[in-house]
Amino acid sequence: MEKVRPALLRGFDQEYLPHEQLQFNALLDLVRANFERYGFLPIETPSAERKEVLTSKGGAEKEIYALSRLAAGDDEDEAATKGALRFDLTVPLARYVAMHERELAFPFRRYQIQRVWRGETPQARKGRFREFYQCDIDIINRERLSILAEAEIPSVIYSVFREMAIGEFRIRINNRKVLKALLHKFEVPDARAAAVLRALDRIDKEPRAKIEADLGREGVARAHALCEVVFTQRSTQETLEALQNLSLEGSGVQELREVAEAIRKFGVPEAAFGIDLSVVRGLDYYTGTIYETSLTQYPEAGSICSGGRYDDLASTFTKTSLPGVGISIGLTRLFSKLREAGLLRAPSRTPAEALVVTMDPRYLDRYLEMARALREAGVNTEVYLEQAKLKNQLAYADRKGFRVAVIAGENEFAKGVVQVKNLSAKTASDYPLGRLVTAVKETLDGT
Amino acid sequence: MEKVRPALLRGFDQEYLPHEQLQFNALLDLVRANFERYGFLPIETPSAERKEVLTSKGGAEKEIYALSRLAAGDDEDEAATKGALRFDLTVPLARYVAMHERELAFPFRRYQIQRVWRGETPQARKGRFREFYQCDIDIINRERLSILAEAEIPSVIYSVFREMAIGEFRIRINNRKVLKALLHKFEVPDARAAAVLRALDRIDKEPRAKIEADLGREGVARAHALCEVVFTQRSTQETLEALQNLSLEGSGVQELREVAEAIRKFGVPEAAFGIDLSVVRGLDYYTGTIYETSLTQYPEAGSICSGGRYDDLASTFTKTSLPGVGISIGLTRLFSKLREAGLLRAPSRTPAEALVVTMDPRYLDRYLEMARALREAGVNTEVYLEQAKLKNQLAYADRKGFRVAVIAGENEFAKGVVQVKNLSAKTASDYPLGRLVTAVKETLDGT
Repeated sequence: MEKVRPALLRGFDQEYLPHEQLQFNALLDLVRANFERYGFLPIETPSAERKEVLTSKGGAEKEIYALSRLAAGDDEDEAATKGALRFDLTVPLARYVAMHERELAFPFRRYQIQRVWRGETPQARKGRFREFYQCDIDIINRERLSILAEAEIPSVIYSVFREMAIGEFRIRINNRKVLKALLHKFEVPDARAAAVLRALDRIDKEPRAKIEADLGREGVARAHALCEVVFTQRSTQETLEALQNLSLEGSGVQELREVAEAIRKFGVPEAAFGIDLSVVRGLDYYTGTIYETSLTQYPEAGSICSGGRYDDLASTFTKTSLPGVGISIGLTRLFSKLREAGLLRAPSRTPAEALVVTMDPRYLDRYLEMARALREAGVNTEVYLEQAKLKNQLAYADRKGFRVAVIAGENEFAKGVVQVKNLSAKTASDYPLGRLVTAVKETLDGT
Repeated sequence: MEKVRPALLRGFDQEYLPHEQLQFNALLDLVRANFERYGFLPIETPSAERKEVLTSKGGAEKEIYALSRLAAGDDEDEAATKGALRFDLTVPLARYVAMHERELAFPFRRYQIQRVWRGETPQARKGRFREFYQCDIDIINRERLSILAEAEIPSVIYSVFREMAIGEFRIRINNRKVLKALLHKFEVPDARAAAVLRALDRIDKEPRAKIEADLGREGVARAHALCEVVFTQRSTQETLEALQNLSLEGSGVQELREVAEAIRKFGVPEAAFGIDLSVVRGLDYYTGTIYETSLTQYPEAGSICSGGRYDDLASTFTKTSLPGVGISIGLTRLFSKLREAGLLRAPSRTPAEALVVTMDPRYLDRYLEMARALREAGVNTEVYLEQAKLKNQLAYADRKGFRVAVIAGENEFAKGVVQVKNLSAKTASDYPLGRLVTAVKETLDGT
């Protein structure tokens, strides 16, 4: 028979072996636990939404995957004619809040950990894929939202990455109102503002001289002075003073000051955050504080967590004003970069705990009974059900990451004992059958 | 501005409010914990696969969703030309095992909990949707697989549904070889076998007389006698005797006997399983033991967990013979049916534990400090950050399912105390500030 090549689609190719999947799941669980620790509640939304919902905020059409039936079906299927896969978790959130507004408690604090799909050019080196996980939190309120919410978000991020133990990181904050006022100060016409911001946003990818030249081409007369303000590294205090001296219009500088002060109160240490005027965030969408997060020892990973404040989440769907603030961790990309940088630690605990080796099929009842006792005591246990030599069963245990093997055959059962083998230390002892559970648990605690 | 209607696509509409999502996640976590308890390890596969991978086993094309770009992109995208969404987790498993064969430890025991997509006609009443979760376990080996694996699968299912506490259930088993031999015994020509099995499979939906008539039309001379054998309810022992008396050819009856005996050894009580000769399973795919599971008090829910033994998982992708056995729980459907039947209990623990009420913005530092102390002690804690009356903050706490409120204003802080309110019992007491964590934990333990 002609074989089909077992291969993946480019960009839909982040598939892990079980031990890698366990590492990934450990990160997912850690993120989820931290989100819950701060009072965020879960939602999930369908993978496909109506096209007009997904495109309601404009843009992105080129990146959206639409659905159709592979072969014509008998029945009407609006998913196949009107449906497309979500490209982020924010548009579905807006649709969700507008749809369920009456049933939700506000401020609505939700987390959402799901896959999204984007038809971008995949670049494994940059951790960019066409299918990837996003982990989002947002705080949405009706009519008004306290600036304290903008300060709380970095404290959640701090909690997540501190527990991840992936080295030093820095949450860099800025404010769109400050950027807007800066451009005004430097006499950038409104029509050029978007292009100028895009140019400033390339500082991680291009030399400053190139950016200054680009700004000049966009008609910015004092490009060098603008870059001095935006790209000079200063302490939070110094940045606020520099901005003060510029006497910018609007409330941006005051907001930035308030948010920075509140972030400290929320318990984020000075070293883990700072104002960075070069943080731009592409989307028009943001109206106040914006965030990016970078790894100090590994800046080439880019921003591992980004977001910001927006004044109106769902204006395309509802008349209710819904200001909010949120961030997103691109977990597939982060996992890929951490793995590449060797910053992923083995999960402290694999779910494969005890393997009951089967030496002699006549004793199946006893093997199963031991497994039952272990499982009831909370130990994840597998019984090796195929016929194989002891050596091969132990090789399987090692390969799968089991920490303990339980070994007994005719001799052991005659003596009423069982051998408990510590697979990492390569030590083994006999225990009375009645002490099996205790012996395995003690061995697991010691591994 | 013209508003876009915030609506979902038909069949892509199983979206929950946060409290429902928590119930759903509790089920997911329970399933996952049970799978791990039996030594299954996780994998996830990409949502989209190559079309030729998905269709390699034939059939199903009408139900498959293909991908395309909503607007033409600049770059080549094979996902948009060659990709489609998976309709189950078995075909991706076959592709995965064929692709990673050298890197996997066999017997390969994997669990996979992900969404799948099928362009069927959605029927909310039957719990049939176009997007839904499947929770699969499979045991795959190279060349041969012990019949004990076929007996172990029901013991995992038993463990899952017992812990779910959704009332009595029954794992009904049959064997494809027995069905094949039965049809031979009743002189059903091979060309009619598939149609006859499909007719038998409709016993949950149609009266027996109708099925007998259909069998007659398919040319089964002794339709009534065949239905007597297949549909008569008997004990496991009686069924095995009845089959024995028919002197069927092949090893099916012997396998059924061995599997039934081993299932008992694996600890599944007699009441929770039984042989049912009317279990057919649509797919050609299965070659030995097959399973369905029904709720005793709620048979109209249909089979909540089905699967079986197959001789060759991945013959379309590899020359290696990969026999296996597996089952699948359709969790979205199960959740929908349990909710309808009122069999879903509230999760014993909501992640919303303590709400720190903010009575006076001057004390923000103290509120944040209390929250930090609670979180460090493992209590999920939210600080109410908007300005609102105490009454409204407590209403928010109730609505979101918080179990404890921490209340302190000028008076309390002057006295060095804090009020801890049990939100379910509606009782409250003052505690010295230094005893806050203990008081909250004790209150949570009592709720």
